[in-house]
Amino acid sequence: MKSPWTVPDLPPLDRHLGARLREAIDAKAKPPGSLGQLEDLAVQLGQIQGRFDPHIGRIAALVFAGDHGLTEEGVSAYPQTVTAAMVGLFLSGRASVNALAAASGVEVRVVDVGVAAELGRHPGLISAKVAAGTRNAAREPAMSAEACALALQRGMDAALACARDGADAIILGETGIGNTASAALVVHRLAPAPLADCIGLGTGHDAAGLARKTAAIARAAARSDAGDPFEVLRQFGGFEIAAMAGAALGAAQARRPVVVDGFITSAAVLAAIRMRPELAGYCVWAHCSAERGHRCLLDVLGARPLLDLGLRLGEGTGGVLAAPLLRAAARLLTDVADLAEVVGP
Amino acid sequence: MKSPWTVPDLPPLDRHLGARLREAIDAKAKPPGSLGQLEDLAVQLGQIQGRFDPHIGRIAALVFAGDHGLTEEGVSAYPQTVTAAMVGLFLSGRASVNALAAASGVEVRVVDVGVAAELGRHPGLISAKVAAGTRNAAREPAMSAEACALALQRGMDAALACARDGADAIILGETGIGNTASAALVVHRLAPAPLADCIGLGTGHDAAGLARKTAAIARAAARSDAGDPFEVLRQFGGFEIAAMAGAALGAAQARRPVVVDGFITSAAVLAAIRMRPELAGYCVWAHCSAERGHRCLLDVLGARPLLDLGLRLGEGTGGVLAAPLLRAAARLLTDVADLAEVVGP
Repeated sequence: MKSPWTVPDLPPLDRHLGARLREAIDAKAKPPGSLGQLEDLAVQLGQIQGRFDPHIGRIAALVFAGDHGLTEEGVSAYPQTVTAAMVGLFLSGRASVNALAAASGVEVRVVDVGVAAELGRHPGLISAKVAAGTRNAAREPAMSAEACALALQRGMDAALACARDGADAIILGETGIGNTASAALVVHRLAPAPLADCIGLGTGHDAAGLARKTAAIARAAARSDAGDPFEVLRQFGGFEIAAMAGAALGAAQARRPVVVDGFITSAAVLAAIRMRPELAGYCVWAHCSAERGHRCLLDVLGARPLLDLGLRLGEGTGGVLAAPLLRAAARLLTDVADLAEVVGP
Repeated sequence: MKSPWTVPDLPPLDRHLGARLREAIDAKAKPPGSLGQLEDLAVQLGQIQGRFDPHIGRIAALVFAGDHGLTEEGVSAYPQTVTAAMVGLFLSGRASVNALAAASGVEVRVVDVGVAAELGRHPGLISAKVAAGTRNAAREPAMSAEACALALQRGMDAALACARDGADAIILGETGIGNTASAALVVHRLAPAPLADCIGLGTGHDAAGLARKTAAIARAAARSDAGDPFEVLRQFGGFEIAAMAGAALGAAQARRPVVVDGFITSAAVLAAIRMRPELAGYCVWAHCSAERGHRCLLDVLGARPLLDLGLRLGEGTGGVLAAPLLRAAARLLTDVADLAEVVGP
């Protein structure tokens, strides 16, 4: 099926600028390479912003929420109603992501793209609902092509709005009961990787629960041989996963680094990278999750995560924890003296 | 030789409180354990502060500077004058540690405990010089027992002053040309670990430089069989290394978490732990350095570092990069709702 969504073009990253940024860092008053991965991040930020003096001040976390028809199959240890409860918790400012964001000076914006409940109005909530949850992907496509396109577009719009409002970097995160199952299918098809390598415990499962989840995922996989990124999102995705794919592309279009959280966010960004490979240069991989399948996915993408703290929560928490590293990396280029200034010419 | 320095007693950490803090985190509105190592850090901070609502706001980095007689043996690729130049750079606010500290809201204090130059007065400089550099440890003890005790005490005093001035956590860092050689000897004796496992490239060496460094370290090791932590510091240490050992004990005495930077800082804290094993409970290991020997030392101590970014600079840079994680961890306990509040009783 031809995608009804037009993948945006991205501004190309200037490789020559990248080499000059590397030289600028090597000229700083420190042994070359001695700040390791932080130096690579500084180069990347300079390339993305297209300048020698990148600045990361305001950072926004976009937390996308959606429900999954797959929960009918018992793929999660939690009932679907928890998704709406989590959105309520985000809006009250008392979820984990809020706590970590407060510590790091990150703004949290919650986007309802597909929660199976009426959420009402709230100043912190962006209402962008495509439908009240996806259909059951074990039995039928999770969404129509039009709904998938709408979710992608609404995610992109949310990221563009963040950028317009002054965010220098955009963290992507999510909540959605059942979405590790959906993400496993996306990674399986688009990494690609054996299904068994993509299925983990999610937010918590016993052996019976994991067996139920694995069987449901296998039924979904057997139903469609989709391999095109748009079609994979349509068949197996969630609205929040499609929206994060769109948001990643939107952030990159606005020349903002895309800070990728855990397994589910990475699955969404994988789909976006398969649509537009140049996106990879805009991605900052915040952490390696404890969820099975994330390491495998990072390896496939050649992505080096900044943190490895055994997180497996989602909500954008890993992205928020990594945010201060972006600010620090940018400061390397702007605040550190050159060696020549210290020792003389 | 009997140590002329009295190792301070440390307030014991309450194991029972630790268990209750763990329960408090498990009761939060998130799957138990889903924030991984951040949860362990939150428990540790609560135990150190002795409260259920730990707070990490102000964080200070103490950067100790000292010179090493071992540089006569060619153990460093840089001349000794670079130590004083680095102190000048810290005071100008344009070193790497200043840049990262500005990004993370960390205050930097520079302590001269043994720089081989007159540094003059500066509002950001704590003058605590014991002597103008250590003696050449390849030929004789690096310092007298009195000088070693004075360095320990001055480090402790600097940390206690930070705590009095309102720092909720204290990062330890250093500068001192030749100090990876000194640290290698300290780790070799106190881990203990084979000398070959403790010697790395430092801030930069070619093969000939590394051979020179290795030979000088071997001569120093052959000169004394010291194994007691005070005597090891006296024989092989630097003033900045002894001062960091004292500062770690001072911070812990004031119930402040000790944020440990890289290889050299870890060597100093190892000596302090060998003097007072209870110190280990106060230590937050910021990162695993790329300097050979650091991983080995962390393993010996059973320490799990927060970051692994290939840093090998020192100055406290890794500690400063990890600082926001302490603020975030404390917020877990104070800001996140309990599950019972969300789903009802």
